[in-house]
Amino acid sequence: MPTAKKRTKTVTMMNGVPVDRLEETIEAVSADPELGKSEFRARNRWIKGGHNRSTITDFYCAGEERVHEKPFELDNGEHEVLLGNDDGPNPVEQVLHGLAGCVTTTFVYYAAAQGIEIDEVESELTGHLDLQGMLGTAPVKPGYTDVQIKLRVKSDAPVAKLQELATLAQNRSPVLSTVSSPVDLDVELERM
Amino acid sequence: MPTAKKRTKTVTMMNGVPVDRLEETIEAVSADPELGKSEFRARNRWIKGGHNRSTITDFYCAGEERVHEKPFELDNGEHEVLLGNDDGPNPVEQVLHGLAGCVTTTFVYYAAAQGIEIDEVESELTGHLDLQGMLGTAPVKPGYTDVQIKLRVKSDAPVAKLQELATLAQNRSPVLSTVSSPVDLDVELERM
Repeated sequence: MPTAKKRTKTVTMMNGVPVDRLEETIEAVSADPELGKSEFRARNRWIKGGHNRSTITDFYCAGEERVHEKPFELDNGEHEVLLGNDDGPNPVEQVLHGLAGCVTTTFVYYAAAQGIEIDEVESELTGHLDLQGMLGTAPVKPGYTDVQIKLRVKSDAPVAKLQELATLAQNRSPVLSTVSSPVDLDVELERM
Repeated sequence: MPTAKKRTKTVTMMNGVPVDRLEETIEAVSADPELGKSEFRARNRWIKGGHNRSTITDFYCAGEERVHEKPFELDNGEHEVLLGNDDGPNPVEQVLHGLAGCVTTTFVYYAAAQGIEIDEVESELTGHLDLQGMLGTAPVKPGYTDVQIKLRVKSDAPVAKLQELATLAQNRSPVLSTVSSPVDLDVELERM
């Protein structure tokens, strides 16, 4: 039937999120929890000193192997005070970037799911750590002890609704969850 | 004294790391632990849907405010299966990138401090999470439950020494520490 071929599917967008597909995803994962199981991947190659580069190509999600449109290449560097040449943000700064993005996306997706229009979102993150841990000069934690996220949102929605969305973002953001609760880490060494 | 002005300081490099300055840093932080206190920062702005952008400009480290040579701009995106346009690696992939880089840099810096020459380092990371947590369809953790890091190293050093360095990297990497142990997270909402 030629008419069926020509028929286009209407996509309802809210905050740049295809809400019909978001609802379909929620329904599909509810019906088959196996679809939730995901594996993300990165490969990294050392360049020199505090400079190295990751390539992000593929992942497993919603029951299938997935490939990015193009591989992403990302550099880690270290500022001169941390003995590098400032070839990129450093690894602890990358974590703040991922955290900012995840809280923002979770906030915006939940707003879309609830039909709340968002005009702008900005965030400022500060994380504290003690170099003594990395240097091994004192038995303190090498990583962040605490991170503050200031989220500024422009929207006509009531502030109580925005606060509810911020709480959802805090409770459901995958990166916030990764950073705020323990993850099993396994390092395996192989000689080339 | 003209001769003094012309005198250049010899920099001993190992694995691209200025080892004299690494030793000076360790001594300085040992003598004055306050120098270890660091604050890292990111600002982020939502663009559309799952696309947002961070700017990394400055930080506080070793007793002073520091500014990167140029601000770094980093994008977060989401693949089409996660309802985005693949405008960048997604936030949980960014975390793997930071983790890979931090373990690599910690490994290489400790090797340099011990006079161990490293020829190559490559790593492969895989992290597992369940989308049910982010979607709220089941009471499971939204973030990574576990991350595996395969570290491949080319060096003439004995494998036992490389394993010792890998263990140091695992115990002292700031990002590995951030991900593997709980961090206090505070989200504050403000309406624009």
